[in-house]
Amino acid sequence: MTPSAPTRPDEHGIGARLTASVMRDDYVAVLSDALLAAGAQADLTTIETDHVSTFVRGDEDALLRYTGAVVAELAATGAHAMVHLLLSRGCPGEVACSPTDVCERSPRTVAPLPPTGHEVAAQWSLYPLSDQHMDAIEEAIADVRGAGLVTTPRHYVTEHVGDAGEVLTAIVQGWLWAGRGVAHTVAHATVSINHPSTDDLRASIAAHQRYEDAR
Amino acid sequence: MTPSAPTRPDEHGIGARLTASVMRDDYVAVLSDALLAAGAQADLTTIETDHVSTFVRGDEDALLRYTGAVVAELAATGAHAMVHLLLSRGCPGEVACSPTDVCERSPRTVAPLPPTGHEVAAQWSLYPLSDQHMDAIEEAIADVRGAGLVTTPRHYVTEHVGDAGEVLTAIVQGWLWAGRGVAHTVAHATVSINHPSTDDLRASIAAHQRYEDAR
Repeated sequence: MTPSAPTRPDEHGIGARLTASVMRDDYVAVLSDALLAAGAQADLTTIETDHVSTFVRGDEDALLRYTGAVVAELAATGAHAMVHLLLSRGCPGEVACSPTDVCERSPRTVAPLPPTGHEVAAQWSLYPLSDQHMDAIEEAIADVRGAGLVTTPRHYVTEHVGDAGEVLTAIVQGWLWAGRGVAHTVAHATVSINHPSTDDLRASIAAHQRYEDAR
Repeated sequence: MTPSAPTRPDEHGIGARLTASVMRDDYVAVLSDALLAAGAQADLTTIETDHVSTFVRGDEDALLRYTGAVVAELAATGAHAMVHLLLSRGCPGEVACSPTDVCERSPRTVAPLPPTGHEVAAQWSLYPLSDQHMDAIEEAIADVRGAGLVTTPRHYVTEHVGDAGEVLTAIVQGWLWAGRGVAHTVAHATVSINHPSTDDLRASIAAHQRYEDAR
């Protein structure tokens, strides 16, 4: 049996950056509520918000819980919001980091988030920084496809549509999976929350066009 | 002399994905205006908007002009907006792409954007998908530092503050520079436009807290 090997977030540079955008005039209130509520729910070692993003450090389970809480809090407001997520492992410094050894953790799976009742669409990309990166990407995507999400390949990204809990679990799990073989592995995801349906969007754009034409 | 070697965007998978978020109730109108105006200004071969992002294909100069136009159009509205940009080269397919050879272009520099008069803050990360990725990243960052921007290393990203024209030129140039040696090279950047000052943000959060306390 593999002995229990929890990851050490500081030593292996395991963490995330998250930028949340809220399409409403009162975005400051919506956003600060969501970030405060999420921070209180996850067991992170660091949370630092600057003017572009929030940097968080913690193990993979804590990163997933935090991201899930931000997305669920925003979804519950009914506002259309976008969350951009950067997950990183293997680069503990800032610019001049020296990649560490592969950080194998046990168990190899994250604790999945429960369903949230909110559907999201996410475009996800995975970057194992290695000559063998395509193998690691294809394996991780094959693993994620097994999760039963609606998954569509697009240029540069894989798109998942489904419950926020399942989509975010698949994204964090895929990043952890690719990190088995490549020390420095990064993932990015853009998550659309309460996205207007295509029909709503077309109607809004058409109404806007009529308004512009009438001016 | 190196003969002129324009890049072939389709063959080498040179393109971008861009997600723009506008923190206003009338985000649909602001966003559709900006995307339409930018699309009319840049010489792209493809523009496809889905519910999460807009995929564009064109050479490096066209990608830079398009991104610059989106950012300048949004900045001119006065709205606080975030633009997330993914730049990719060397992966012409979708999931199962086979990286191509290094695509050297001549000239090796992009046509710089003129200053826009709008200051932005951008967090940028560069992923040359190679075992030698840190060398390529450090070289590209050293090159960009020479551009005279305010540049700060942060965990997982490099932050640039300056005129939108200069910041975006540096980001696209750094990605092109790293792509000299590594065929499959991706960059991500999150750009904050009309970002509230830290003082404004603190005041808004304090006002919101007083409102919550008074309920």
